[in-house]
Amino acid sequence: MMNTIGTILSLTTFGESHGPAMGGVLDGMPAGVDIDLERLQRFVDRRRTGQTTGSSSRDEKDRVEVLSGIWQGKTLGTPIGFVVRNTDAHSEDYKELANVYRPNHADFTYQAKYGTRDPRGGGRASARETVARVVAGGIALQALASLGISIEARIEGAADLDQSISQAASQGDTLGGIVVCTIKGVPAGLGEPVFGKLHAQLAAAMMSIPSVHGFEYGDGFEMAGKRGSEVMDVFEKRPDGSIGTVTNHSGGIQGGISNGEDITMRIAFKPVPTLMRPVNTVDHDGNAVVLQPRGRHDVCVIPRALPIVEAMAALVILDAFLLNKTTRL
Amino acid sequence: MMNTIGTILSLTTFGESHGPAMGGVLDGMPAGVDIDLERLQRFVDRRRTGQTTGSSSRDEKDRVEVLSGIWQGKTLGTPIGFVVRNTDAHSEDYKELANVYRPNHADFTYQAKYGTRDPRGGGRASARETVARVVAGGIALQALASLGISIEARIEGAADLDQSISQAASQGDTLGGIVVCTIKGVPAGLGEPVFGKLHAQLAAAMMSIPSVHGFEYGDGFEMAGKRGSEVMDVFEKRPDGSIGTVTNHSGGIQGGISNGEDITMRIAFKPVPTLMRPVNTVDHDGNAVVLQPRGRHDVCVIPRALPIVEAMAALVILDAFLLNKTTRL
Amino acid sequence: MMNTIGTILSLTTFGESHGPAMGGVLDGMPAGVDIDLERLQRFVDRRRTGQTTGSSSRDEKDRVEVLSGIWQGKTLGTPIGFVVRNTDAHSEDYKELANVYRPNHADFTYQAKYGTRDPRGGGRASARETVARVVAGGIALQALASLGISIEARIEGAADLDQSISQAASQGDTLGGIVVCTIKGVPAGLGEPVFGKLHAQLAAAMMSIPSVHGFEYGDGFEMAGKRGSEVMDVFEKRPDGSIGTVTNHSGGIQGGISNGEDITMRIAFKPVPTLMRPVNTVDHDGNAVVLQPRGRHDVCVIPRALPIVEAMAALVILDAFLLNKTTRL
Amino acid sequence: MMNTIGTILSLTTFGESHGPAMGGVLDGMPAGVDIDLERLQRFVDRRRTGQTTGSSSRDEKDRVEVLSGIWQGKTLGTPIGFVVRNTDAHSEDYKELANVYRPNHADFTYQAKYGTRDPRGGGRASARETVARVVAGGIALQALASLGISIEARIEGAADLDQSISQAASQGDTLGGIVVCTIKGVPAGLGEPVFGKLHAQLAAAMMSIPSVHGFEYGDGFEMAGKRGSEVMDVFEKRPDGSIGTVTNHSGGIQGGISNGEDITMRIAFKPVPTLMRPVNTVDHDGNAVVLQPRGRHDVCVIPRALPIVEAMAALVILDAFLLNKTTRL
Repeated sequence: MMNTIGTILSLTTFGESHGPAMGGVLDGMPAGVDIDLERLQRFVDRRRTGQTTGSSSRDEKDRVEVLSGIWQGKTLGTPIGFVVRNTDAHSEDYKELANVYRPNHADFTYQAKYGTRDPRGGGRASARETVARVVAGGIALQALASLGISIEARIEGAADLDQSISQAASQGDTLGGIVVCTIKGVPAGLGEPVFGKLHAQLAAAMMSIPSVHGFEYGDGFEMAGKRGSEVMDVFEKRPDGSIGTVTNHSGGIQGGISNGEDITMRIAFKPVPTLMRPVNTVDHDGNAVVLQPRGRHDVCVIPRALPIVEAMAALVILDAFLLNKTTRL
Repeated sequence: MMNTIGTILSLTTFGESHGPAMGGVLDGMPAGVDIDLERLQRFVDRRRTGQTTGSSSRDEKDRVEVLSGIWQGKTLGTPIGFVVRNTDAHSEDYKELANVYRPNHADFTYQAKYGTRDPRGGGRASARETVARVVAGGIALQALASLGISIEARIEGAADLDQSISQAASQGDTLGGIVVCTIKGVPAGLGEPVFGKLHAQLAAAMMSIPSVHGFEYGDGFEMAGKRGSEVMDVFEKRPDGSIGTVTNHSGGIQGGISNGEDITMRIAFKPVPTLMRPVNTVDHDGNAVVLQPRGRHDVCVIPRALPIVEAMAALVILDAFLLNKTTRL
Repeated sequence: MMNTIGTILSLTTFGESHGPAMGGVLDGMPAGVDIDLERLQRFVDRRRTGQTTGSSSRDEKDRVEVLSGIWQGKTLGTPIGFVVRNTDAHSEDYKELANVYRPNHADFTYQAKYGTRDPRGGGRASARETVARVVAGGIALQALASLGISIEARIEGAADLDQSISQAASQGDTLGGIVVCTIKGVPAGLGEPVFGKLHAQLAAAMMSIPSVHGFEYGDGFEMAGKRGSEVMDVFEKRPDGSIGTVTNHSGGIQGGISNGEDITMRIAFKPVPTLMRPVNTVDHDGNAVVLQPRGRHDVCVIPRALPIVEAMAALVILDAFLLNKTTRL
Repeated sequence: MMNTIGTILSLTTFGESHGPAMGGVLDGMPAGVDIDLERLQRFVDRRRTGQTTGSSSRDEKDRVEVLSGIWQGKTLGTPIGFVVRNTDAHSEDYKELANVYRPNHADFTYQAKYGTRDPRGGGRASARETVARVVAGGIALQALASLGISIEARIEGAADLDQSISQAASQGDTLGGIVVCTIKGVPAGLGEPVFGKLHAQLAAAMMSIPSVHGFEYGDGFEMAGKRGSEVMDVFEKRPDGSIGTVTNHSGGIQGGISNGEDITMRIAFKPVPTLMRPVNTVDHDGNAVVLQPRGRHDVCVIPRALPIVEAMAALVILDAFLLNKTTRL
């Protein structure tokens, strides 16, 4: 709830965009798992700015400092606390925004909810928050790899994206996009019936990423327009004696439980809400205000979203794996 | 987790399709709320079979028996236990299925997970499970109504659906469809930051409904192909002095928190997996089997899904409303 | 929280003393566990009235009706829903109490909390609520027995109790007492560090039983007056090669985690609050009232408390056993 | 569960005794609460060593670094992340202990549970872990103070304690003791029925403190030997028109819910397990080992336990206060 996700493996995060640090606690990691901290840092680096066209010029080093739970290269079974310092915040850019509501941002809703907010860089609502997810997910990915489970997110239509980003940027505009994610090697049996369906957990995890507006798994929305006979994943006996499905319209999950096929999903991101052109809005009292372009922002978050999607998928799958160990006495 | 959903207002359900009863416990309902049990029964009746083209001929009366938590027409603040008896189960129809895996059903995955399952009518994986959600959601809806919050689900493209269902049925085939849901009257401020975003909770709730393969809110997947300037919900001061948005691409939620506009979402259902024609599959040992059509099944669940969608939305919104009361001291 | 206890194995209960039924949902029970329902009924019968000196004359049959989760004598891994009907309630005895606060009961606090309450038989605050715990705990006990774990509660000073009860009853007075509970066969490693310490979970479970005012494990309060050298449980290598402690001042738990020795604890129950003599109190408006003895009540609940204590211990230990399965990958 | 406590207001902690830092995340704090960080530091300082007879010579500065959730002297409603660095660890003292199980410590049980452990200073099982509780509890105390609720813990028999400590220390021995805690100003209505009883939550919180072996509230264990007529808290109307009890055997809680009287409880701590004299034990393989006195340890933890008890009480009461806001619509 709130700032925690997961049942056995749970991640709690904290941090405002321009506060001293982002961080989190990953609890429930099994003991004795090898963790390569350099590999973890490289995974976190994939989310950094400055690596792709149109990414923000805020230059955070994002050095991961692990404070507990990992010792001599292995997990202890105790909670893994970590921080990532904020070192390149330009808070003065946000001074004028203290009483103004930027459209499609969370300024208005945070103010409505809490009666206060940290306006610097979007505060807690900033996508900078996701750095903690990537740290935790990167640890989970290493555990999953030791189980033969791999996760890959990619950009749908990536071929044309660079050019589109440049074009949008030149017009002070922004883009969204779609991330496709595939999870391979998941054994049959993960996920819980009814409210804990594996795809419901994946949906909640993905929809919790800033800017995500849609989630589907398997053939998703397309299935709504198909007939039952068109999307039937017929079972077959495979040469190795196992049972699998000939097709995978179901996206690797049936009845909310993994069936051993690849888990597939698509995640829709809305365009970045901050434009580099004047935008009309109102202030706290309802007075009309014209926002002038300012601050450092991505034109399109999709390239940086890939490790975030992989991280969230990893947290969900490892949690489901652990929970499934309790299914039999 | 597993068979429970919700943080403050939590619903735990139980029941197998052909067991003695379905039921649940709705905990966390505030005290002193008027509950009209006849109105509740009418809401539950909307989910019953036999009311629309192509629905199953299994004729369950679905009488709701409230066992606790409501007294003299008002909630006590104590948990509301309830049962709905299963009275028209034809378990003999499923005898042959004990060792057979029906495609696109949960037979295989339950067996993989638990090493056992109740094959009668799909057991716990049957959509009959949703009757408990509708009972609990119907109670939540009455509480929401007293707060001025209303929820309406409708079928997208309903005009053509009857004919399509008849046509599919005549071919022993089945249909899916899309349900659109709108929530009106939600105050600004509901939903929690980061992992408890209101749309993440709605997504998890909707994706937990059997057969759902996709969820989006606001402009959803369409936003992924738009530019930032095209989906900007500009704020304005309204005649009554309040602040609102001119458009509602965001679907009433920004930064995971309601902004006071209508909450809008679309939910994609896959076609019913049981066809009324022979289907190839395998048994527990991988031997090829041809399933003959048998049992009583819907051709399309969409008409019966409407109260289920409304019920799940009601549970999420009322829970968020209660949790939001703790935001300030 | 509220009406649910447990992390993996969770019990949610419902029911008011004079409502139609008590009941609960036991979720998270592993699949494939043999459950003997007649043995379960015999365990529940141990809590019934009329079996010991001074127990209430309310004669409930307490027939357990299992509604789901157990099929053909085995658990399915799905939630176990059950009800126990209330059949011998005399609600008219409580008519005069609707606006009166009985001392040492929950009448006043429920009214303060909820602004309403069901006064009949104490409503939700009645110890009748514990019947659902005994049903669920009885199921857990059968699972534990298959693991070689046994639980036994006994009355401290039982030799003199019968006579004391008769004496107190003859004076319209009531008694409390102490229950001692021993858990044998628990493997080392159960319990979680910090907030999930095994004895903290046991304490919460026992303190949640009506009338309990104190909990201690191992040498408990006595340890506070001892020196470190007097309570040192020195380790030794045993003939079978295992490591154990020579003494057991620690009560089988060290650092919140079981060490393989017997788990021992003592639980203090206050005297029954309903006297069979006139008692001074006030009504809702603060007016002085003299309560006349009425209704059917126990003189001492200790004999009936034994299966309740065993049930709660069983729920905690099985939950800890399941959670511990996730400690390693 | 595990390293998290609380429902609405939740604290998650992390840190090993000789790792880089201890820390935690306090989530669910309401927005807009004034927090005086210097006052918080003074509260945390009460737990430091070197202030009372017989406390450890490990000299940690325990400077609290708040990383999020508090801005310009007020809470934001977002999670409060904080760290306290470990700066005076002497890990070399523990080198010989890597394979040895100290009696009455958690060495053996952690090894049994996780198959590994950080032996330096007791790792996660060290009472140094409690510094994070005191930080979080100190914040909760400030919120409670603004509501008129105060908490005070004191040592039972404090008059004689100094001399006893000196005497035990001179013999290389250690002491336990009893802490009495009183909570004043709690409104009637806090606590949840059945499993969430206020005293059950307090018991779990107190029993989770290292070394605690017993908990009681009100007249506690003494009530077990009393008659009902002797412990009856008769209600009366007070001059201000409110209803209260003449006596307070119940310790401010009835039916698990606060009744507005002072909440009283007693908490028993076992003696410190590390003696400054040779102690017999075994190593990982069961070989006999004589532990030589080494390291820096308290002779008696009771003086330093006072702020820990107050902190845990504060977390429970504020959580119950927040949860109680959801009791009515």
